[in-house]
Amino acid sequence: MHDKVSLADKFASFDDRWSPKIVGELNGQHVKLAKLHGAFVWHHHDEEDELFLVHRGRLRMEFRDRVVELSPGEFLIVPRGVEHRPVADEEVELMLFEPAGTLNTGNLRNERTVEQLERL
Amino acid sequence: MHDKVSLADKFASFDDRWSPKIVGELNGQHVKLAKLHGAFVWHHHDEEDELFLVHRGRLRMEFRDRVVELSPGEFLIVPRGVEHRPVADEEVELMLFEPAGTLNTGNLRNERTVEQLERL
Repeated sequence: MHDKVSLADKFASFDDRWSPKIVGELNGQHVKLAKLHGAFVWHHHDEEDELFLVHRGRLRMEFRDRVVELSPGEFLIVPRGVEHRPVADEEVELMLFEPAGTLNTGNLRNERTVEQLERL
Repeated sequence: MHDKVSLADKFASFDDRWSPKIVGELNGQHVKLAKLHGAFVWHHHDEEDELFLVHRGRLRMEFRDRVVELSPGEFLIVPRGVEHRPVADEEVELMLFEPAGTLNTGNLRNERTVEQLERL
């Protein structure tokens, strides 16, 4: 039986950025928490839609043709195949929903790729 | 392309209780918002795990052998097959994450069942 998860407690338990942590699993999907600061790489996911929900701070999701700014309590779903780049001018805390096995850098493998995600 | 969703705006747009609204879809899963007040029926889901994240208020999730109390910013995953009963002594606002097609009453069909979910 799973126990409840406090987002605040989980976010307080790590400091490293750009390294999503798994905090829940259901129906083949993962719930992840991440802290971001700065700009990520442009990428897309061939097979996975991704949900980004802001917990604290602000996230700017850049697309090739527009930008979406997210504040706490706002979420955005990025459909598979759509190129995007998350940017945070100040640190942002995010909750992610996506299929288990989703690679943070999507179609790329580079120095920003995290192959093995920590579980909190 | 999906637009961003404000949880506060969506919750402000409806008043009816026990009637989950679909606010997002990804990877065959639905993101739903619901307002509850009072006690629901005991039920389980044969094939679906369910995530309950409290946005406002408090939720008491009763199991046959224990109770879990959830405050804002806390979530709980109820695995498939596990009997549960959501109870809210005062109104609670919830975000749900579960497979598309999940019936709110799980293995039961009764007067609490909502067959067609509204999309906000």
